[in-house]
Amino acid sequence: MKMNVAQKLIKDHLVSGEMTPGEQIGLKIDQTLTQDATGTMVMLELEAMDIDEVKTEVSAQYVDHNLIQDDHRNPDDHLFLRSAAQKFGVHYSRPGNGVSHPVHMQELSIPGKTLLGSDSHTCANGCMGMLAMGAGGIDVTMAMAGEPYYVEMPRIMGVKLTGKLPDWVSAKDVILEMLRRHTVKGGVGKIIEYYGPGLDDLSAMDRHVIANMGAELGATTSVFPSDEEVKRFMKTQGREDDWVELKADEGAEYDDYEEINLSELVPLIAKPTSPDNVVPVEEIAGQEIYQSYIGSSANPGYRDFAIAAEIVKDKVIANGISFDINPTSRLLLQQLVENGHIASLLSSGARMHQAGCNGCIGMGQAPATGQNSLRTTPRNFPGRSGTKEDSVFLCSPETAAASALFGVITDPRTLEMDYPEIPEAAAVKKGEMLEAPPKDKENIELEKGPNVSSIPNFDPIEDNFDLPVILKMADNISTDEILAGGSRVLPFRSNIPKISSFVFEGVDEGYTERAAEKRDEGGHMVVAGHNYGQGSSREHAALAPRYLGLKVVLVKDFARIHLQNLINFGILPLTFDDPADHQNIGQGDVLEFRNIHQTIRDTDTFTIRLKDADEEITVHHSLTGRDLDILLAGGIINWAKQRQ
Amino acid sequence: MKMNVAQKLIKDHLVSGEMTPGEQIGLKIDQTLTQDATGTMVMLELEAMDIDEVKTEVSAQYVDHNLIQDDHRNPDDHLFLRSAAQKFGVHYSRPGNGVSHPVHMQELSIPGKTLLGSDSHTCANGCMGMLAMGAGGIDVTMAMAGEPYYVEMPRIMGVKLTGKLPDWVSAKDVILEMLRRHTVKGGVGKIIEYYGPGLDDLSAMDRHVIANMGAELGATTSVFPSDEEVKRFMKTQGREDDWVELKADEGAEYDDYEEINLSELVPLIAKPTSPDNVVPVEEIAGQEIYQSYIGSSANPGYRDFAIAAEIVKDKVIANGISFDINPTSRLLLQQLVENGHIASLLSSGARMHQAGCNGCIGMGQAPATGQNSLRTTPRNFPGRSGTKEDSVFLCSPETAAASALFGVITDPRTLEMDYPEIPEAAAVKKGEMLEAPPKDKENIELEKGPNVSSIPNFDPIEDNFDLPVILKMADNISTDEILAGGSRVLPFRSNIPKISSFVFEGVDEGYTERAAEKRDEGGHMVVAGHNYGQGSSREHAALAPRYLGLKVVLVKDFARIHLQNLINFGILPLTFDDPADHQNIGQGDVLEFRNIHQTIRDTDTFTIRLKDADEEITVHHSLTGRDLDILLAGGIINWAKQRQ
Repeated sequence: MKMNVAQKLIKDHLVSGEMTPGEQIGLKIDQTLTQDATGTMVMLELEAMDIDEVKTEVSAQYVDHNLIQDDHRNPDDHLFLRSAAQKFGVHYSRPGNGVSHPVHMQELSIPGKTLLGSDSHTCANGCMGMLAMGAGGIDVTMAMAGEPYYVEMPRIMGVKLTGKLPDWVSAKDVILEMLRRHTVKGGVGKIIEYYGPGLDDLSAMDRHVIANMGAELGATTSVFPSDEEVKRFMKTQGREDDWVELKADEGAEYDDYEEINLSELVPLIAKPTSPDNVVPVEEIAGQEIYQSYIGSSANPGYRDFAIAAEIVKDKVIANGISFDINPTSRLLLQQLVENGHIASLLSSGARMHQAGCNGCIGMGQAPATGQNSLRTTPRNFPGRSGTKEDSVFLCSPETAAASALFGVITDPRTLEMDYPEIPEAAAVKKGEMLEAPPKDKENIELEKGPNVSSIPNFDPIEDNFDLPVILKMADNISTDEILAGGSRVLPFRSNIPKISSFVFEGVDEGYTERAAEKRDEGGHMVVAGHNYGQGSSREHAALAPRYLGLKVVLVKDFARIHLQNLINFGILPLTFDDPADHQNIGQGDVLEFRNIHQTIRDTDTFTIRLKDADEEITVHHSLTGRDLDILLAGGIINWAKQRQ
Repeated sequence: MKMNVAQKLIKDHLVSGEMTPGEQIGLKIDQTLTQDATGTMVMLELEAMDIDEVKTEVSAQYVDHNLIQDDHRNPDDHLFLRSAAQKFGVHYSRPGNGVSHPVHMQELSIPGKTLLGSDSHTCANGCMGMLAMGAGGIDVTMAMAGEPYYVEMPRIMGVKLTGKLPDWVSAKDVILEMLRRHTVKGGVGKIIEYYGPGLDDLSAMDRHVIANMGAELGATTSVFPSDEEVKRFMKTQGREDDWVELKADEGAEYDDYEEINLSELVPLIAKPTSPDNVVPVEEIAGQEIYQSYIGSSANPGYRDFAIAAEIVKDKVIANGISFDINPTSRLLLQQLVENGHIASLLSSGARMHQAGCNGCIGMGQAPATGQNSLRTTPRNFPGRSGTKEDSVFLCSPETAAASALFGVITDPRTLEMDYPEIPEAAAVKKGEMLEAPPKDKENIELEKGPNVSSIPNFDPIEDNFDLPVILKMADNISTDEILAGGSRVLPFRSNIPKISSFVFEGVDEGYTERAAEKRDEGGHMVVAGHNYGQGSSREHAALAPRYLGLKVVLVKDFARIHLQNLINFGILPLTFDDPADHQNIGQGDVLEFRNIHQTIRDTDTFTIRLKDADEEITVHHSLTGRDLDILLAGGIINWAKQRQ
């Protein structure tokens, strides 16, 4: 059989299941990636499961999210993570080294391998011919413990790229075009594989840009072939020995097809408040801006910063504009420094920030109330910037830099200059980026600061119970809305009782109080529409509501990672058999669950009764046998303990 | 009469009073400086007083304190400050441009002028032959409105510098030696004037280091002559036309004398938790550290960063160490970039931060719990770093960089290398640093975000009242302890009701509750020991407790700036006639104030009765006629309104 790249990657790592779209498959995981926001919990889970040393080929712990140290909590966590990395045999990347995805790409990526990461943009390393997937932290914990990763076999969508990007149009515009065509739900249940002659002019870092924001399409992941360009990239990192070729067989087929003629693309921009709200830049040119923001794993490359630098070189940005430069890694910053680009940015009036995720996840650089912010970041969900009434647009570095010069949204094609050529960065002296775990781990103790607390124990759901609906939501509720990121909330990520006080606060401030009222009466449930749990992979969006007594989530359909997080923390995820039933349930209604343990094992479709109403609602679950074992054990930690 | 530099500066600006130590003098103010933490209130005060345009020669508003934007509040304030600067005719320095003191020194300082700033380290510009003083925000408001600044004529302490600093010893060690000899109270009521042959080898920026931390000695300010070195410095800034010579007359005398032989100094370090807790570095060498921090207005110069870069060049810092580089200005960062020093720092493993005050005022980079942090910053008061149980040491860049390499406190003299020579920075293309106010101010409106609220009105203190003592404190209570800085508290600086909930929280968490109980019963008072209100000049440390009902503060003695802030917000500041009486008053005691309006006008010493005890306590005030007018009007805003 002629196979495409995605199929080859899956076949090489298949430990269970059939490669038929929709079937559950188990995959061997070669590498894992954790960042600090999700990593502390992963490390506590490894501790709870008595793991001595990770079983992966390589695992890396990055500190890139919680870099604002305004009290002891974040630095205490950094020390905890370093001690845990040493104890469990994990590489450690210290604060200031940069964002996990580009650093992993540069330092550890290997074509043909699988990578599972507790960050939704882990898919970015698909640019290297890897099968790189974001997952809940607990899934990554299990992978580190040597367990396979279970996922529905996706459909493979082949996206043929033809033509060549015009001047002033770059990789970001390619993925914005995909979002324009397919929306934030268009990639659900799919791997997006890019192929065709258009690849020839896309560097490995350009491909990173495109693969990264596959997360915004809802895709399981994106993949690119491992070709000469990947080899060239690895050579620049001194790692060409790790390169292997990985290409689709001649004549390989795809489940779905798409084609983009790069030559026809124009500068695009996603308007507030969704990454798929995409229009040509020229359509909204002239709107005043407060901020122009360059950085994040969605535009991480040397080119992305250098082009902005060339655009503002020898000019001064508009007065009153905050032109925020967020280098994605220490190494990249070195290259930009040594090649003169940081000098150009600074003399134009730019504001330099430390290397890391920063404002992309609401950690600094929040915009002023109601003011427009242009960002090269991947997401513009409401409030993600840190400002509740924000107005965030997503665009390329070209568009962001051009707009900084004029103080209004500007189509970069209207600049009176030639499109800058960005030559490859000259080599720089590379400082140590990753700290390898020590050989002798005898004397390593976990350093637990006062804000690191143990994981609460959860009982399995009962067999018979009534649950009140205390919150009803519409479509596209993101994990940011379930539990916000940002510097107010994330510092409590290792402290479940405390972090749970923020659950759903942006959706309904009364939720936590109602949950507290119902907690001793047996808990509660919530109801929502399509694409529930889109966005960030943070498992706290399941764990924290579970702590508050959430036992059942009933929606039209789920985003993939959040669905697995719910199962892993013992929350029963159900979908309406008929989506129209969503309108028949309201806040305050009580649903009667009867003989649930046996029912969900026996059938995937069953009815539940609406108490005090002569009505039954048909619901559906997609739980596999393993999912059922986990759910009925009260979650995956209980399940893993039982297996030892 | 032969005059020293300080006397010449005072005489040139004297508008009232006699130049006799202890007498109140009024000084014409030529320049003002405000930073964002205190500046929003200054601008609201100008608005409340219906000021159209500032009356100073030049005023500048810097945004350097509140740079962490994790929600709308700080960026909203930045926009407010820019609009206010334009409306009132003030230069505006945008976020990322850097710390006020070095930027003011580079861009606006003029020898022979007076500078009043709403920041306690304003004295740093004394390095330029200016009379530069920190004051409460309201004093700066008054100066901007054209009022003189009133202060007690200080004693002038002449510090003769001889010899030449040895290798590995630098300006920071000079001021640490002063703190070792004179303590944090040693400069109270004094101007410290440096003179002598030792000046010849101290650059203008070295003098900035020394003048800056005169604040930690409690001094009114520090002054240096304006000599050839100052001329040279101004030439590097393209401002040699603004230079004037200002030197002490041959044979001029001082009220007090001190002498430091620079040749005899060794690397010094201030241990937790006071800047005067100074010992030689070698005495505590070998202690493990978590952090090495370079930056702040206490070591702002090119040299200070370049020497650290040269020390770590081609080496890698110890694993696990956070080596935090905080450039003091955008221009300095440009110079460090273009001369290769940032490259050296980065490849050693340093973590680059944005230009600004940052961790020096608890805005990021807080150390982990109980871990040692070495900083080139001016203050190590408990909790100022943001971490309650912190352990902060103050030292030179040489000591900080050497310690980063080894992960333990290290005397830089033990490094196996020659002391690096730091040549003057090569010129760089200078971007725009300060935005001049527009000529036409007709259409400028103040942009008030939702967190900017008007200033509460306060009634004058009554004539007869009883006050309970609800808090009793010991010596050296700093304004950080009265009202903390840091990112949790300062974002509320333009919102008095909200910020008042943090008053005294580090001293006694029950204070605000007790104050609330007594508020409707007529308020309360507090009692403390020596040097009450040392440290930061923030007027919120008077305004916020006033809002909670604080009416009288009774102490052994006051720090100068805070005393004036108390008067300005209508709080009666009293001292014990006999300090031993401090032990005769306890929390819960009630004091009876009778016929106060007339009494404090008639006499500076009077008695108050301890209710329910057959005891009287003799107290003292140092209020001038003008102070009395202000106090009995209910504060300076009421007073200024009455005068219009």
